[in-house]
Amino acid sequence: MLRVSYRDLFDALLRALLKLGFEPRRARRCAQLFAESNRDGVYTHGLNRFPRFLSMIQSGLIDIHAKPELLASSGPMERWDGKIGPGNLNAWHSMERAIVLAREHGIACVALANTNHWMRGGSYGWQAADAGVIGICWTNTLPNLPPWGAADPRVGNNPFIIAVPRRKGHVVLDMAMSQFSYGALASYRMRGELLPVDGGFDLQGKLTRDAAAIETSNRPLPIGFWKGSGLALMLDLLATLLSGGKASYQIEPIPERETMVSQVFIAIDPSCLDSTGAVSRVADQIIENFQLPRHSTGPRLRYPGYRVLQTRKENLAKGIPVEPAIWQQLQAV
Amino acid sequence: MLRVSYRDLFDALLRALLKLGFEPRRARRCAQLFAESNRDGVYTHGLNRFPRFLSMIQSGLIDIHAKPELLASSGPMERWDGKIGPGNLNAWHSMERAIVLAREHGIACVALANTNHWMRGGSYGWQAADAGVIGICWTNTLPNLPPWGAADPRVGNNPFIIAVPRRKGHVVLDMAMSQFSYGALASYRMRGELLPVDGGFDLQGKLTRDAAAIETSNRPLPIGFWKGSGLALMLDLLATLLSGGKASYQIEPIPERETMVSQVFIAIDPSCLDSTGAVSRVADQIIENFQLPRHSTGPRLRYPGYRVLQTRKENLAKGIPVEPAIWQQLQAV
Repeated sequence: MLRVSYRDLFDALLRALLKLGFEPRRARRCAQLFAESNRDGVYTHGLNRFPRFLSMIQSGLIDIHAKPELLASSGPMERWDGKIGPGNLNAWHSMERAIVLAREHGIACVALANTNHWMRGGSYGWQAADAGVIGICWTNTLPNLPPWGAADPRVGNNPFIIAVPRRKGHVVLDMAMSQFSYGALASYRMRGELLPVDGGFDLQGKLTRDAAAIETSNRPLPIGFWKGSGLALMLDLLATLLSGGKASYQIEPIPERETMVSQVFIAIDPSCLDSTGAVSRVADQIIENFQLPRHSTGPRLRYPGYRVLQTRKENLAKGIPVEPAIWQQLQAV
Repeated sequence: MLRVSYRDLFDALLRALLKLGFEPRRARRCAQLFAESNRDGVYTHGLNRFPRFLSMIQSGLIDIHAKPELLASSGPMERWDGKIGPGNLNAWHSMERAIVLAREHGIACVALANTNHWMRGGSYGWQAADAGVIGICWTNTLPNLPPWGAADPRVGNNPFIIAVPRRKGHVVLDMAMSQFSYGALASYRMRGELLPVDGGFDLQGKLTRDAAAIETSNRPLPIGFWKGSGLALMLDLLATLLSGGKASYQIEPIPERETMVSQVFIAIDPSCLDSTGAVSRVADQIIENFQLPRHSTGPRLRYPGYRVLQTRKENLAKGIPVEPAIWQQLQAV
């Protein structure tokens, strides 16, 4: 793994996007979102996704010039058409709209149809929290997860993000519906390690901790078995109904051709009900009691988002890890 | 198990509540919410909870005369004080407010502090769906679930409900954060059956399917291990911050004394963005493709809420199952 400065990573991405024809302002935002994923340790959805992003632009599945268009609105609710524009720009724009509307109404919901993969879902949670509001968002995806009781993929491994702003560090849960992502399975396999808990089924239909066996069967496990199956279905229903876009079953089941997904962005401004500023202090107390309750002799736990901030600090100090081959490819765009 | 008619169950509950001093209108609503839980097969949160409800009224933890009071409002957002009134009445009132506000604004959020156990969480999802709107609600509870990585209970087994209205049968996910409830563990133990999947840890800290061993260790497993731990924490954070009420760590960790919980009720009116009536048809197609996708040779699955409707039909036809001992106790109030 090579380490480069955040500035160098951002600049290299920006140069590539400008050469591809992105407008300067949009190129900067897009480069930032890719670079921040690496900065925060989410390598699978940062630079490592850039080659696929490029090839989807080249094949016309992503239209770099398309801007989201407002289709319908009703006070704090809006429906936008993503027009197969870059997924991270569309998602960022949608959360930005939700934040503006939440400041006006207290709560807001922006639904986005016909968009592309938003890369790291957590980006839009951090975006809301950085703006001082609660962010809740999710996306559907191609059917790539067998629900409990079936061996064929009928639901999407839909990421679901909840972010709560806090001065001492935002609390950001960024979780998909499978116990392990395909990226995580691959890295356990490559390290020759067993998964810490059952992660799916082998070809014989037995639960297993063997990542390679799950990659072979294509049967990763939803979180909580039947519960995660149900939650994945609900997220798809809500995203589709609110956006008026495509449901998982209508999305081409080939990762390289995944397009026209549906997303929801909810923002809540807690200060609309409580202007005393108690929110950050109350959140601190809850987090302290989660990490290590008074009188507990147990271990100190990390809250969702903690590791991101640690990694961010470390990567900004030591340089951002990048895959050398993809780093080379980026220079050559 | 004894079976009684819905009318007899409702009337017996109503009589008991009137004798306790409930106002007639509130007694009817409260009796309905208890009776509907049994009707729908959720026996643990219907009549079986009534004795504890009674004893909490007698010990003053539930104030039957307390009505929720509006503390703050901002357009589609409201904050209410439940004033330790009956939890099901407070919750029903809050979802009703959210529905009214959603019809006006498109989306609405009602947060409720200082309330009591809402009994069956799904009730308020069905309530929203029956009104033709999407309902999302959750509650915190006493710390009764060890998060992943700790053996002591630091989060609540917080129920989370998502309901989508549909003419052919609402889709209602009603799930708590543990893989199995204590009620489910008890019934596996009594039947002498192993759990279908690991449900928690034994005293030696090993994952087990032995329900009795989990009851002994008090270490049920969160859904998705670290993921359900994180989701439980986020639900507590949101409920506490939005309601201004108590967090799980502030709630007395004795089930019989659980009071002053915090809840959130979100309603979304999908017709505010789409008046074409497409919503129900789109939901039907998603559900059909979940149950059995075209070209799939796999089994037909049940969607969340399906079994409730089947049980409701059966119980209305054959009579509602009630525990004979509790049924006797109810007549004697």
